[in-house]
Amino acid sequence: VRDDKRGDADREGSPHRFELRVYYEDTDFSGLVYHASYLRFLERGRTEWLRARDLGQKQFAAETGIVFAVKSLSIDYRRSAAMDDLLRIETHVANVGGASVEFAQMVSRAGDLLASARVRVVALKDGRPTRLPGAIRARLHDDAG
Amino acid sequence: VRDDKRGDADREGSPHRFELRVYYEDTDFSGLVYHASYLRFLERGRTEWLRARDLGQKQFAAETGIVFAVKSLSIDYRRSAAMDDLLRIETHVANVGGASVEFAQMVSRAGDLLASARVRVVALKDGRPTRLPGAIRARLHDDAG
Amino acid sequence: VRDDKRGDADREGSPHRFELRVYYEDTDFSGLVYHASYLRFLERGRTEWLRARDLGQKQFAAETGIVFAVKSLSIDYRRSAAMDDLLRIETHVANVGGASVEFAQMVSRAGDLLASARVRVVALKDGRPTRLPGAIRARLHDDAG
Amino acid sequence: VRDDKRGDADREGSPHRFELRVYYEDTDFSGLVYHASYLRFLERGRTEWLRARDLGQKQFAAETGIVFAVKSLSIDYRRSAAMDDLLRIETHVANVGGASVEFAQMVSRAGDLLASARVRVVALKDGRPTRLPGAIRARLHDDAG
Repeated sequence: VRDDKRGDADREGSPHRFELRVYYEDTDFSGLVYHASYLRFLERGRTEWLRARDLGQKQFAAETGIVFAVKSLSIDYRRSAAMDDLLRIETHVANVGGASVEFAQMVSRAGDLLASARVRVVALKDGRPTRLPGAIRARLHDDAG
Repeated sequence: VRDDKRGDADREGSPHRFELRVYYEDTDFSGLVYHASYLRFLERGRTEWLRARDLGQKQFAAETGIVFAVKSLSIDYRRSAAMDDLLRIETHVANVGGASVEFAQMVSRAGDLLASARVRVVALKDGRPTRLPGAIRARLHDDAG
Repeated sequence: VRDDKRGDADREGSPHRFELRVYYEDTDFSGLVYHASYLRFLERGRTEWLRARDLGQKQFAAETGIVFAVKSLSIDYRRSAAMDDLLRIETHVANVGGASVEFAQMVSRAGDLLASARVRVVALKDGRPTRLPGAIRARLHDDAG
Repeated sequence: VRDDKRGDADREGSPHRFELRVYYEDTDFSGLVYHASYLRFLERGRTEWLRARDLGQKQFAAETGIVFAVKSLSIDYRRSAAMDDLLRIETHVANVGGASVEFAQMVSRAGDLLASARVRVVALKDGRPTRLPGAIRARLHDDAG
């Protein structure tokens, strides 16, 4: 049965969770976290989501020639984050297409939602969209299920 | 007549234009520009758009206690940018609300559209949304007209 | 005796250790980690060093009006880091002055030294150098001892 | 005579000058420019210095397989920069070695020195130091003269 292949709790339909700390580099002179820093946080979340599935991107690119590029994204900022905050990034597969994956992601702090985002990522080979390898598609469908 | 108030060509209904160069710091190991770098480019475009209207943000914050924060944004990435590219940022006011402004922005290179974005910015005073001052609203409506 | 005050192993003369992962944001189009990213890594290391001594910088600034600013630094880059690398930041107090602290820091990967740095940080109040509070000086001397 | 080969004013022994604006992205919650942002500014200065000598780095890397990497640097921070500041980066060749170049660089605002740096850059081919091509060495020696 499918569940036997699953090695960790975050694959059980619940989103992948990743925690990070806010440092000086993430803030701006408003005193709060710079709006573009959230995109870096979300990208870390997706990278850790892939790593939890044994997909280190550097190695994957070396083996398959496939890199992932962000094709589109939307983000709503609800509350601010500040220096020293401990943030949680939640990553969930929303849709799987032929050459692309859409992630739903959230940034929260102590249970309060700070930002929510939709990020569509496309697989590229030699600069052109390429069909996701079957083994990856299977794992993505598991998560989206 | 309205035109008499206008001091520079970019207010004639056409978008504000701003050029920038791509440096090492903007790229990532894919060899191209990192997706979050575009948000920094767009923010520079909005800052220069404000400066062209005599609204330096540091001075404005000091005088009025009002800061601008990004409330939501969406961006489509169509083509990649690379090291040494000269990019053009176009900024246009799409909508003016009571406490917020929605910008339509484009990133292009030699006439080719690389990315397009919608960015909603809200005016904050003591951390809460505050009505835009009348003088600013008038200038924004001119641009959106 | 002095040792009784010590709460954690990293104060025993050995440097404070902190691990971090390399993400897309840290790399550039050379394929490796951008040279300025190391300064962000070192700053995270100093922030965690302070946090391990119950000195959250946001709270400390709020309570004392004192912020820390980098006054000078030197760094030698010996080997490159790349995407997905797990790096260790080691932070050690090299010297304590009246208003400043000099840190010796190292970046390593699996035991290999990648970069070493000296960073002098000064305490500022209202923009001017200010004498470090006695309680902090005592803790710093412990670490430098 | 040597001067005949020189095509632009900045090669006359005086340093190359490059101006840039401070944006939100460059600042941190202290209200001022983040210390690592200066390294990005200095790198832009070196890139523009190379461009003024017809050395676009992306094209140069494609043609020769040579990339430049920072080997070591030291920087002194004297005064702070803030949002909206217009900064000048001055770049001068201090020393030319077989495979490396040492730059002396300064960051100033309206004539006030904010930071000064020494940056040693090494030419790499396939990850190893490689002798600078003769044509480049000649131009570097002109500048250092």
